[in-house]
Amino acid sequence: MTELADRAAGPTRTTAAPAPSAAQAPSAAPAGAVQPAVDVAALGEQLLGRWAEIRRHARALAARPELHKIEGLTHTEHRTRTFGQLKVLVENDAVHRAFPASVGGSDDHGGNVAGFQELVIADPSLQIKAGVQWGLFGSAVNHLGTEEHHTRWLPGIMSLDIPGCFAMTETGHGSDVGSIATTATYDPATGEFVVHTPYRAAWKDYIGNAAADGLAAVVFAQLVTRGVNHGVHAFYLDLRDPETREFLPGVGGEDDGVKGGLNGIDNGRLHFTNVRIPRTNLLNRYGNVAADGTYSSPIDSPGRRFFTMLGTLVQGRVSLDGAAVTASKLALKTAIQYATERRQFSASSRTEEEVLLDYQRHQRRLFTRLATTYAASFASEQLLQKFDDVFSGRHDTDADRQDLETLAAALKPLSTWHALDTLQECREACGGAGFLIENRFASLRADLDVYATFEGDNTVLLQLVAKRLLADYAKEFRNVNFGVLARYVVGQATGAAIHRTGLRGVAQFVADSGLAQKAALAIRDEASQRALLTDRVQTMVAEAGSALRGAGRLPQDKGAALFNSHQNELIEAAQAHAELLQWEAFTEALGKVADPGTRVVLTWLRDLFGLSLIEKNLSWYLMNGRLSMQRGRTVGRYINRLLAKIRPHALDLVDAFGYGPEHLRAEIATGAEKARQDEARDYVRTRRASGQAPVDEKNLPARTAPEQKAPRG
Amino acid sequence: MTELADRAAGPTRTTAAPAPSAAQAPSAAPAGAVQPAVDVAALGEQLLGRWAEIRRHARALAARPELHKIEGLTHTEHRTRTFGQLKVLVENDAVHRAFPASVGGSDDHGGNVAGFQELVIADPSLQIKAGVQWGLFGSAVNHLGTEEHHTRWLPGIMSLDIPGCFAMTETGHGSDVGSIATTATYDPATGEFVVHTPYRAAWKDYIGNAAADGLAAVVFAQLVTRGVNHGVHAFYLDLRDPETREFLPGVGGEDDGVKGGLNGIDNGRLHFTNVRIPRTNLLNRYGNVAADGTYSSPIDSPGRRFFTMLGTLVQGRVSLDGAAVTASKLALKTAIQYATERRQFSASSRTEEEVLLDYQRHQRRLFTRLATTYAASFASEQLLQKFDDVFSGRHDTDADRQDLETLAAALKPLSTWHALDTLQECREACGGAGFLIENRFASLRADLDVYATFEGDNTVLLQLVAKRLLADYAKEFRNVNFGVLARYVVGQATGAAIHRTGLRGVAQFVADSGLAQKAALAIRDEASQRALLTDRVQTMVAEAGSALRGAGRLPQDKGAALFNSHQNELIEAAQAHAELLQWEAFTEALGKVADPGTRVVLTWLRDLFGLSLIEKNLSWYLMNGRLSMQRGRTVGRYINRLLAKIRPHALDLVDAFGYGPEHLRAEIATGAEKARQDEARDYVRTRRASGQAPVDEKNLPARTAPEQKAPRG
Repeated sequence: MTELADRAAGPTRTTAAPAPSAAQAPSAAPAGAVQPAVDVAALGEQLLGRWAEIRRHARALAARPELHKIEGLTHTEHRTRTFGQLKVLVENDAVHRAFPASVGGSDDHGGNVAGFQELVIADPSLQIKAGVQWGLFGSAVNHLGTEEHHTRWLPGIMSLDIPGCFAMTETGHGSDVGSIATTATYDPATGEFVVHTPYRAAWKDYIGNAAADGLAAVVFAQLVTRGVNHGVHAFYLDLRDPETREFLPGVGGEDDGVKGGLNGIDNGRLHFTNVRIPRTNLLNRYGNVAADGTYSSPIDSPGRRFFTMLGTLVQGRVSLDGAAVTASKLALKTAIQYATERRQFSASSRTEEEVLLDYQRHQRRLFTRLATTYAASFASEQLLQKFDDVFSGRHDTDADRQDLETLAAALKPLSTWHALDTLQECREACGGAGFLIENRFASLRADLDVYATFEGDNTVLLQLVAKRLLADYAKEFRNVNFGVLARYVVGQATGAAIHRTGLRGVAQFVADSGLAQKAALAIRDEASQRALLTDRVQTMVAEAGSALRGAGRLPQDKGAALFNSHQNELIEAAQAHAELLQWEAFTEALGKVADPGTRVVLTWLRDLFGLSLIEKNLSWYLMNGRLSMQRGRTVGRYINRLLAKIRPHALDLVDAFGYGPEHLRAEIATGAEKARQDEARDYVRTRRASGQAPVDEKNLPARTAPEQKAPRG
Repeated sequence: MTELADRAAGPTRTTAAPAPSAAQAPSAAPAGAVQPAVDVAALGEQLLGRWAEIRRHARALAARPELHKIEGLTHTEHRTRTFGQLKVLVENDAVHRAFPASVGGSDDHGGNVAGFQELVIADPSLQIKAGVQWGLFGSAVNHLGTEEHHTRWLPGIMSLDIPGCFAMTETGHGSDVGSIATTATYDPATGEFVVHTPYRAAWKDYIGNAAADGLAAVVFAQLVTRGVNHGVHAFYLDLRDPETREFLPGVGGEDDGVKGGLNGIDNGRLHFTNVRIPRTNLLNRYGNVAADGTYSSPIDSPGRRFFTMLGTLVQGRVSLDGAAVTASKLALKTAIQYATERRQFSASSRTEEEVLLDYQRHQRRLFTRLATTYAASFASEQLLQKFDDVFSGRHDTDADRQDLETLAAALKPLSTWHALDTLQECREACGGAGFLIENRFASLRADLDVYATFEGDNTVLLQLVAKRLLADYAKEFRNVNFGVLARYVVGQATGAAIHRTGLRGVAQFVADSGLAQKAALAIRDEASQRALLTDRVQTMVAEAGSALRGAGRLPQDKGAALFNSHQNELIEAAQAHAELLQWEAFTEALGKVADPGTRVVLTWLRDLFGLSLIEKNLSWYLMNGRLSMQRGRTVGRYINRLLAKIRPHALDLVDAFGYGPEHLRAEIATGAEKARQDEARDYVRTRRASGQAPVDEKNLPARTAPEQKAPRG
């Protein structure tokens, strides 16, 4: 954990000292010494992580048919069903863990999210609708409100008596929350805020619970008092009459209609025409307005205040990260199970057809994604622990919060994109059967599509990470001693072909470990993988940092243009950083594997992950002189060898995910394919034995009987 | 055309002589000499291609509301609507062009497919359902049947009086058609075939029109007569009673249910229990059974006969290729239009927010896909012309048919995967709005998903291409003279770092043009791009061919294992070959652009395509010594410069696709975003002018008033 948190704080800290787990690295022991074999139960337990019991409970709940998605419903039918399912969650105490003990919760933030992440198994709509109600709407009241707000509203929110909205995003502004245009202007004459939507672009949009179910909302608006705009704050506002379900005066809206997925949720738009709410409806933990209109805040800086209030959003990102990993696991278990049964094309006319999973390409398609899923899973667990550390107050400094933000912003894009990619590859790997809704790939993919852009657009999040990396780089650069700086400049002058960078981290790293040399000689061991992956992040950041130095001193438009001309590289650097975090999480988890046989197999899988990353960016390693041409050519070959090694353990590796038929609910994962093949094989054998089977024309002794040549018109 | 067809025939022919279009290459003229500007109308006309009139007619038809997909229907409602739409197509003579003049068609194969490709605009379900009825079911009767069959069944098929199925795929066998297990055994006693499904895996599956509408089917089955299995043949078989719509005796089946998309089509399963059909229901163009049970065929070899019969399947692949390009165009027009209006985040607090399309990353996401779409579009037109040449009989040798097969097998995978990728990237580039069904990305993506695996699984098709490339390589190698062979062996011994290959084509090419040297010096001009792309295909094929030489002499299982250990490389070689075909098609089209300004812009776009391919495979070029490290580093930078050059012309480039609002039908492509922004801007200006706008807290002169420091609990 500490290791990952450090790493999240910037590239230069990653190499300060090798982590303990690295020292006792499995790849140090010769793999041949022990029998490779996966202890499925033990590995499964490790994957369940710190909140294993809660996950088990959530999986048992998610296995109940009344919580499952029914395919083919209209979106209105689906919405009704999903709302009903939320009540089941309430009845089963599945969604109250994060709330304060004072109102019947258990202040358990990590456990709450762990349970939430598993709900995607039942129906992603159910998961996200629960996320809207308790993770966003309830969470905002909890984190941004004070005691009085908790007492007034949390009980109703927790019991679902008050279904509500998290009304932040506007049609005109999504990920750029600071620019929203809804205003809440304080009127000291009446002691009320006047919430107002100035124009169409400021309508709240894509808001869950807005189209039908929401009785109230936490509305984010620019707080204006005494002629000053104090920035975005959150306000509690009643939307609909609980009896008639009609909008209250001044409130309006419309339905977002059918979406690409998640159609169990009633997303919609909201607008407000001078809606008056009591002053005390301001959720005033980080900013208050006194009766006379005086504004006050425990946080002086408007920028810091804004980011503190938005900090509660991180829970959504942590939740989606884990949910995306869960979906990837479901898909891979189904596709790999099927690929061990399904046969297609025979290598020769005499032998049986090949099992799909014995094809090299099929292995590459599925095992590389399996390796990434393991990495994402271990990283997700670390992120969740970091989240719990912060939200429990155990480690809750400003730096902790910033690290958490950066870590979530790095991992959520990768895991959500990975889930979409994995679901699609698994669907294609199962051919036409993969397209049938009964096998769930297409359904899950449609529902998870929006995970890539909501709760922070993935591209925008990676830019946040890049900015953090740049800031750390700048800080590091200021402290660097002259010798290193000089070397950096020299390095630049001599071109990209030699290993060079001015980052002290890298310089130290090279000096300390002598790994740079080794990296060019070997790519298979843990230390070399780490060296290559770390080096790439650091060098990319250093190069961007160097190119952008002075951007701040340029006129704003020129500075922005300079920044924009490096946007693509910055995003790639952020992605490389996030991949390194995943690799480190996988490696740290490896260090905790007790069973030697499991460790051997899991080391192959970790190596596959590391080498796939290196292969993906091989041109960078070659262009920058990190790998020789000869060495570069070995990467693909070694990956192919790893695929063959992993093949016998593939089923164990997906079984360790711990999902049963009640979770998979995919027709092709039931063994039906094997049964069909056994039936077909028996039929053919019986016919051959009976002598009734026809002879193949190809095998006829005489092929040129005159009548066979007669042309047909 | 000829050029592309030659190239499809194998890598060694591609470089025999530079194509005329290459000689007059636009990049030979300095781009700075003319004003870059797109003649949208002329470019649009060129994109419409040879069947422009038919495409225009089909687009006008597809613009009619009664043919549009209605979102949010249940799959049963959607099926009913789609079936009704087929009648509209019949009434508008939209689907009969390919049928013989003898039954009222016009024997126009290219025109038929061109029109079909545009139908995806209205609703992909409508398109594919029409494809099932006329492109597969009707086509099978047309191409595999004889005069008598045409007279008996084509009129009813054309008029939709006989909705029917193309019952080829079985649950147990998809792309491996040769292994299907349904049998049609001739009984000379009654003069009938007995069609039978021996076991569950042999049920016909994923069959359009099978679940509800199909009254008849062309059933593919192993033809058995006199104790000999003559391989897969096609039989016409009645499925349902036209009055009661019940299955006829011996016929059974079930519904495939909801799918990931295309829910307007009633896919289902069929099985047959000793169903007797008249002998004359065998579609006997390529194989017949006489009354006494004697089998005859104009094609001796069972293998060649099989591939001839399956050759009619190529029409489906050609159709999907073009339809996928159409969908990519729709998505890009919408996303690029929106990106020129939508503003998000400001570079500084003083200036207006940036238009999305001015962000470098956004340009990269959309323009690289725009370039690929142009390449795929021009390649698709060439494929269609080749298809028409063969099916019209103008160029219909065995070699022509094989070239057509290879070309379709190469292009269909790329264009269908590209469409999915483009639809997804465009959806994400439009954020939450992209996820709303009203903007169509998610809907089109769901429907087109299965294009990647039906009508030949993309991975299987690329393997077919790879086998063809290997066969051509082997042929070439046999003819090669000793000197070249020796050089090849020497090259191998000295390692991969030098430019070497034994393929005569390459050797000639290097000698003829001296381009190998130049390729290392420049990457921007057409000749260098061609050299790099061609070289990669040839070298990859040569390497695989060399590694696999002798595989045929090994025991079958060992040979298969050797082949499997190179499967991934072979598929990558096939893909590289297909990409080269697209690049050549784009370049050939460039040579036909008359307007100099258009040619400049289109050359940038073609260069972007070529360089994106080189960047994607940059590690290969570096590892194999084709590009130096320094040169490699310029690729990304040059791509960034191209993006900026293309930016001002992006809207013109998508407007040239020629799709209007009636085709796009996306809310965000209507200019609504711009209208909202204008309204917002006016509001802000008016408020500022009135002096009513609040001051930002950040801009307050005194920030430390005592009440602002009071902490809140």
